[in-house]
Amino acid sequence: MTVGELYGRLKDKSKWFFMERDIGRLFSALRSSGDFWEVLDLSEVPMLLASWLVGELEREGFVAVVGEEVRLTEKGECFCRENDISRARRLECPWCRGKAVHVEAYMKVLREFKGLSLERPEPLRQYDQGYVTEESTVARVVLMAARGDLEGNAILVLGDDDLAGLALALTGAPKEVVVLDIDERLLDFIEDKAREVGFHNLEARRADFRDPLPEDLVGRFDVFLTDPSESLPALKAFIGRGVVGLKGLGGAGYFGLTRAESSLWKWRELEKILVEDFGMAITDIIHDFNAYLSWGYEREMKAWDYLPVKAEPKGIWYRSCWFRIERVEETHLENVPIEGEIVEDEEMATA
Amino acid sequence: MTVGELYGRLKDKSKWFFMERDIGRLFSALRSSGDFWEVLDLSEVPMLLASWLVGELEREGFVAVVGEEVRLTEKGECFCRENDISRARRLECPWCRGKAVHVEAYMKVLREFKGLSLERPEPLRQYDQGYVTEESTVARVVLMAARGDLEGNAILVLGDDDLAGLALALTGAPKEVVVLDIDERLLDFIEDKAREVGFHNLEARRADFRDPLPEDLVGRFDVFLTDPSESLPALKAFIGRGVVGLKGLGGAGYFGLTRAESSLWKWRELEKILVEDFGMAITDIIHDFNAYLSWGYEREMKAWDYLPVKAEPKGIWYRSCWFRIERVEETHLENVPIEGEIVEDEEMATA
Repeated sequence: MTVGELYGRLKDKSKWFFMERDIGRLFSALRSSGDFWEVLDLSEVPMLLASWLVGELEREGFVAVVGEEVRLTEKGECFCRENDISRARRLECPWCRGKAVHVEAYMKVLREFKGLSLERPEPLRQYDQGYVTEESTVARVVLMAARGDLEGNAILVLGDDDLAGLALALTGAPKEVVVLDIDERLLDFIEDKAREVGFHNLEARRADFRDPLPEDLVGRFDVFLTDPSESLPALKAFIGRGVVGLKGLGGAGYFGLTRAESSLWKWRELEKILVEDFGMAITDIIHDFNAYLSWGYEREMKAWDYLPVKAEPKGIWYRSCWFRIERVEETHLENVPIEGEIVEDEEMATA
Repeated sequence: MTVGELYGRLKDKSKWFFMERDIGRLFSALRSSGDFWEVLDLSEVPMLLASWLVGELEREGFVAVVGEEVRLTEKGECFCRENDISRARRLECPWCRGKAVHVEAYMKVLREFKGLSLERPEPLRQYDQGYVTEESTVARVVLMAARGDLEGNAILVLGDDDLAGLALALTGAPKEVVVLDIDERLLDFIEDKAREVGFHNLEARRADFRDPLPEDLVGRFDVFLTDPSESLPALKAFIGRGVVGLKGLGGAGYFGLTRAESSLWKWRELEKILVEDFGMAITDIIHDFNAYLSWGYEREMKAWDYLPVKAEPKGIWYRSCWFRIERVEETHLENVPIEGEIVEDEEMATA
């Protein structure tokens, strides 16, 4: 059977955006690993689609679930050979782990940041929290330094379970940092620690991004940073508020986007919004820049019921690509309230 | 004087897209280097704008040209301090040089490729040729392997002074490679060497990208790769022909884009075309992925007359960012002839 034939049999059954190529990607990952979390990570097939697809492939006899593993059957192996599907490989630089930046240039910040973040509040499912490794947060700061977005800059952080505000404070470099979050525990923690390390130009303030950006923050910043939940409305709200906070042309923004919860269809929809509506040029997309620690509430997340194997992840499996955008046209942006629930769409799996 | 005030005095005099931020970028680079080629590289201000701007700054007393160097005067240094402009820094990973991929995984290919490319034909100004380092070409191949765009894939190379076709042949991995170029010397060289290394699924064929893609190549490929001249019409033509060559959804493309010859305004215009018209999601933008060797005809290029210092570059100064795009919607694309000269626009400097 060819990939195209198999796709033809399955395509109308999927609830999600589904390309023929997703089949190749999934088989390719299955040739490299039997650990489903690693298969998700390697394949880059959206999590819910991948879970459903494994079920279909099991029914068709291409894979078998054995204990906690998903394995290719003889029929599955044969399918790979016939269709010239090779093993998925990680070929990222072993030194920077594909981050492309030199985190060691900020070794002192990294060391201090690791110390401080030991006491951070635990993630809450209620706010779709789940934080990245300390290396990821500090790498974001290093990237900002490399792009001229750190020293002497006014920086807005929209949502900060990753404690980027604190890492920024540790560099002592920004002119000011304003951290917005809905979670008072985080705000208190970040403000206290920033003061402890002697950075006094940080303000942590409670905010809900469904509300407009407060007037005193509009048009005030050189740079913003955010890592939203990945429904299109939430992405648009968080990033949109960030853009509203920028001074104007040349203002820069950073945010993360996964393949696990966003199909490339959603990627393109978001890119249209960034470029057309928000007047931004996309200057960087660094693959798998952010690595997320397991957030401890996997069993409660939406995707759990769909998983072909009910085993908890053994290591890092959830990564996001890191975007940098820069404003080149002052398009009109509304700063108005958004009604209703925004952190929900059919591709979201971890909320 | 503030950056804003200086910008106010200069902005109406510029022929090019010019943001306030370009001033900060240029001063920041001038704080790090007096070598104008290095300043171009570090600042990321488009080459012609940067050359003009240095002239204006000299007239205003902020910089002085001393021998072969462009130096900040006391007034210029003072301006930087007052406006909190820090030194530009390279903070790319020292191992992969910011390429993010593990080139050493293909060390054998790199070694053989270096050997073979010693005999390559010299670049011709007539075709706007100028090739990248061997590491850059092989890194492109490694990135393709990492993204599942190499093994068993049918690959189209549109314009190949970088000899990507040959590097692909050395891996032995693609199902087929078709190289199109206007330069017969290159075509003969690539076809001969591919045969020499035992790769028989490579065809090198003469083509002009103003003409439609030949019928037998339409809809035939999984992946394309190109590194066009950076006028918007040329970018659109080369990349557009590549997209026309793809089989359909999930097909991927790779191409380079500089900051030296393309303002972020042009970046955004191109991104609009990619996302809207070509139906692509942009999946990767790797900063300064490609390093170009000096092409030996610097004195003949358009920018030479504009340069504040008439010295030849001492090392690599011209880099491009590397895009990966993937098709997620089959928008209608025309495969029709393009009339007139396409490799010319007001930001182009090296042609």
